[in-house]
Amino acid sequence: MRRVTNFSAGPSTLPYSVLKKAQAEFTSYQNTGLSILEMSHRSKHFEEILFDTKQLLQKLMNIPNNYQVLFLQGGASLQFSMVPLNLFHRTNHAYYAHTGTWSEKAIQEARKMGEVTMISSSEDKAFTYIPPIHLPNHPSADYIHITTNNTIEGTRYDTIPNEFDIPLVADMSSNILSEVYDVTKFGLIYAGAQKNIGPAGLTIVIIRDDLIGKAPQNCPTMLDYSTYVKTKSLYNTPPTFSIYMTKLVLEWLQKQGGVEGIEKVNKEKARLLYSFLDHSPLFHSKVEPKFRSIMNIPFTTYNAELDQLFIQTALEHDFLELQGHRSTGGMRASLYNAMSIESVRKLVDFMKLFEQSYLLEGNYVSNKDL
Amino acid sequence: MRRVTNFSAGPSTLPYSVLKKAQAEFTSYQNTGLSILEMSHRSKHFEEILFDTKQLLQKLMNIPNNYQVLFLQGGASLQFSMVPLNLFHRTNHAYYAHTGTWSEKAIQEARKMGEVTMISSSEDKAFTYIPPIHLPNHPSADYIHITTNNTIEGTRYDTIPNEFDIPLVADMSSNILSEVYDVTKFGLIYAGAQKNIGPAGLTIVIIRDDLIGKAPQNCPTMLDYSTYVKTKSLYNTPPTFSIYMTKLVLEWLQKQGGVEGIEKVNKEKARLLYSFLDHSPLFHSKVEPKFRSIMNIPFTTYNAELDQLFIQTALEHDFLELQGHRSTGGMRASLYNAMSIESVRKLVDFMKLFEQSYLLEGNYVSNKDL
Repeated sequence: MRRVTNFSAGPSTLPYSVLKKAQAEFTSYQNTGLSILEMSHRSKHFEEILFDTKQLLQKLMNIPNNYQVLFLQGGASLQFSMVPLNLFHRTNHAYYAHTGTWSEKAIQEARKMGEVTMISSSEDKAFTYIPPIHLPNHPSADYIHITTNNTIEGTRYDTIPNEFDIPLVADMSSNILSEVYDVTKFGLIYAGAQKNIGPAGLTIVIIRDDLIGKAPQNCPTMLDYSTYVKTKSLYNTPPTFSIYMTKLVLEWLQKQGGVEGIEKVNKEKARLLYSFLDHSPLFHSKVEPKFRSIMNIPFTTYNAELDQLFIQTALEHDFLELQGHRSTGGMRASLYNAMSIESVRKLVDFMKLFEQSYLLEGNYVSNKDL
Repeated sequence: MRRVTNFSAGPSTLPYSVLKKAQAEFTSYQNTGLSILEMSHRSKHFEEILFDTKQLLQKLMNIPNNYQVLFLQGGASLQFSMVPLNLFHRTNHAYYAHTGTWSEKAIQEARKMGEVTMISSSEDKAFTYIPPIHLPNHPSADYIHITTNNTIEGTRYDTIPNEFDIPLVADMSSNILSEVYDVTKFGLIYAGAQKNIGPAGLTIVIIRDDLIGKAPQNCPTMLDYSTYVKTKSLYNTPPTFSIYMTKLVLEWLQKQGGVEGIEKVNKEKARLLYSFLDHSPLFHSKVEPKFRSIMNIPFTTYNAELDQLFIQTALEHDFLELQGHRSTGGMRASLYNAMSIESVRKLVDFMKLFEQSYLLEGNYVSNKDL
């Protein structure tokens, strides 16, 4: 079977062994005679899958007992609304750090429901760094919101600010499970699954007990976190297949030495690419070294036409989805957990060849030269 | 590969040919070298799948050009809130027909956002019939809501009431695509996918143009139908794999002669089972014949212990999920599109054997007797 190297920012590459396992039992899960896709969400088999998935995540992230793990739908975009809807209860006010496209959307949605104060922003330098958080002298808000990793801009908090008395909420969509986080620093963590967790269609929420049950009475049942707590995420039909795939991915992650193990691999992958970028006369990273993402690495030649040529040539060599986000242009390589070191080495080797060929021959690189 | 007969009310049985096709290209879609699960929702391949799925549905349901087909998440349960949130704009008042468990939940959610008048109810007879709709002399509401098929109670509107000037909204989760409906009778149709459309995790909304764009300014972006219209259901990452599977199911449906073709099969399947039930001294349907669902057929022996014995014995013969909803007890056979006539014949034959064995031997039927 043909396999390409897929640098998509999400949905993104999955471990091949996981795909093969899911394929093998696709029409008959564990010889039950039916596909996971056909299985009642209230069947014993599926309830086991749901339970195992939750337990695996609790173990992998070392989630304490006073936190609930919830399985939802709608992606981070729906969490942008569910967070304020559920957590605004005392001051109707929240502090948001503005670090890119996604934090901006989070802010816009929260502003529909209450007051938002932007407590830091890196907009002044096109979001190429993580700004420090400065709270006012007498801070008063229901929560502080950060985006731990900025998928489009390629930045990441190098340390998690946690000297505050106010619950910290994190959009961890693009770097959950990529490195060790101390869950106790957070009041709530949310993440769309389609990057490091599993397929699209599933959203994970990890919420501390004291933040549950604060939604207003007229809150839609499906938007109230307590609905998912009370029903163990089975209020209505959950995205069953996405949850099953997530279980397989988490089992795979466990075999990689858990989050500790994969963090080492991820840091080595990122080091390989950044170290090349920092010495390349052609390719450049715009992000301040201290705040560079280890998951999403944007780069550019500072020449839009040459960027296009690179992306096209890479595609012809089976390196997929290296184009940057449509809002930024340039290139971006997403190196999620399932991307191997070997694949990153191959990418760097290819970039070196492209660069040499370009520098030797001027502003044109034909496919056959590589 | 082992296959059982799966009467689950949802997620439910899928056409085996569809499962085989998805399995074959599971790790490399159309030799692209990556799985559908790994594919960016903004890739050419996925955008084609999304477009084709929409077009297939438009064709199969004969959806006019002044209706939009939207792909969402959250199931019918989230639609219970999205419908009033988007359609309450003039009177903040809606008429609801109360025909069972799901209509009750729809009413509860709508009441959080405005006034609800129950314009008909079959609660007096345990929801075993469909009550006529009587509007007041000077009706004034933003919409009328019905549930075309009641999954738990096994009832179905035999005709769609449409003499009103008020937009008709229908929860069609459990019988969409099972029989021909005139879409022009409706202002809005919604359905969770996990019964007749495809896997769990996808929700379909069909909405008439004049009902779009009426949500309040502070409506969460993800809950505003116009978001999905403007972005062609690509505001954020949609449930890509569920959409792909839906495309395969719709292609399969087309080969069955479309909705017209499957309606004949569905009516014959239902006729086989009801005709047995109506002549059985042991098994009974409680539903008024005129309003009987052709998708979900509850039945009972009026003896809870015997019902349990039947369900257990059926399970031993690979007839799965014949237990009734946990709120009603008894049995239920869901005969969605993907359930073959042959499987229904086998079920009826099995029920006959069980019945004979029971009537011959008294109140105990051992597995070996069958």
